[in-house]
Amino acid sequence: MEQRALWNISYGVYIVSTWDGERPTGCIANSVMQITSEPATVAVSINHDNYTNRCIEKSGRFAIIVLAEDSDPSIIGTFGFKTGKDMNKFDSVDYKIIDGMPIVNDGCAYIICEVINKMETDTHTVFLGKVSNADFISKGVPMTYAYYHKVIKGKSPKNAPTYIADERGENMATNAEAKYVCGVCGYEYDGDIPFEDLPDDYVCPVCGEPKSVFVKQD
Amino acid sequence: MEQRALWNISYGVYIVSTWDGERPTGCIANSVMQITSEPATVAVSINHDNYTNRCIEKSGRFAIIVLAEDSDPSIIGTFGFKTGKDMNKFDSVDYKIIDGMPIVNDGCAYIICEVINKMETDTHTVFLGKVSNADFISKGVPMTYAYYHKVIKGKSPKNAPTYIADERGENMATNAEAKYVCGVCGYEYDGDIPFEDLPDDYVCPVCGEPKSVFVKQD
Repeated sequence: MEQRALWNISYGVYIVSTWDGERPTGCIANSVMQITSEPATVAVSINHDNYTNRCIEKSGRFAIIVLAEDSDPSIIGTFGFKTGKDMNKFDSVDYKIIDGMPIVNDGCAYIICEVINKMETDTHTVFLGKVSNADFISKGVPMTYAYYHKVIKGKSPKNAPTYIADERGENMATNAEAKYVCGVCGYEYDGDIPFEDLPDDYVCPVCGEPKSVFVKQD
Repeated sequence: MEQRALWNISYGVYIVSTWDGERPTGCIANSVMQITSEPATVAVSINHDNYTNRCIEKSGRFAIIVLAEDSDPSIIGTFGFKTGKDMNKFDSVDYKIIDGMPIVNDGCAYIICEVINKMETDTHTVFLGKVSNADFISKGVPMTYAYYHKVIKGKSPKNAPTYIADERGENMATNAEAKYVCGVCGYEYDGDIPFEDLPDDYVCPVCGEPKSVFVKQD
């Protein structure tokens, strides 16, 4: 079995938001799909280990913010690589409350849902949400997961890795050149300036962590 | 509520295949997503009215063929706009049997699943499949739903409809020019030659139906 064949499934990039009691919280998700149109329902798959999972479980509501190609990549760092258990992720972003749900003002659309069913698996919960409200935020083009890895991570290995390797940002290039990878989010530095020569205040463009968390890989 | 905001969710284009007793059958689906990685499971949403739904229900198995940007568009016509109840859709395509499942030889990857759970909604069943096998078919780039509507349908309305209108191929252009739309699959003719001047043996490039099924819309 070639597990990488599953990487050919196409996804978008989303923030799934909800409430932890008084505090808004959320995480990045790719596994989102509409299930029915009348009434409109949407399914989202969230890992059990993700703090957002238990918060959706408690609150019975979630919102999906569809990120756009021009969304600030640091949002993915904040919502994708940190936990809302210890911090308020919304402190660092512009957002508003719509129908009682926290909606980040950086994306192309939002969808607000009430949980009406769920399916459990070993590691993830698939929440089925009935859409109570939805609207555009901007005229941006929805970001796909492929776009995120190809364009935002800016990977362009010199020894022509397969499309899939490029697609997922896996380090499958066969050249032996040293790479610097963010130890927090996995972003691989690929700029023209040698990594060592970057200024000390360089931060990961994806998750915002400092230069010091980057790990050299041969 | 702006229902069109839901169109900003990104999808791929897939054939979901299974068996109707002795005969292979299948349909086009967009709602496919991986749910867990260990063990690998994939969810697919299939309408109750779709013949493939009851065949998956009976056989307990399905396969997903990930279509590529260079897949033959007529496959989408065959699998998406006709029913396997009355015909063998596989008669018109090249396919092979892998692990007992019918796999169309035109796409970039296949994923074979056994149904281990399901979630019912008013109109669709979300089947959860445990992946028993998966592999690449070609090095093609996975087709996204946006690509299908933008490139294969080749829509380019003159009066700049919104991205969403373009994305979904909806007829939202404000010009009053007559359009010819395939009555079977909804493909909108947008070629340089006036539709009336096309040869009599012109067929819909998406579903293969003859010129006579096209409907003039003002």
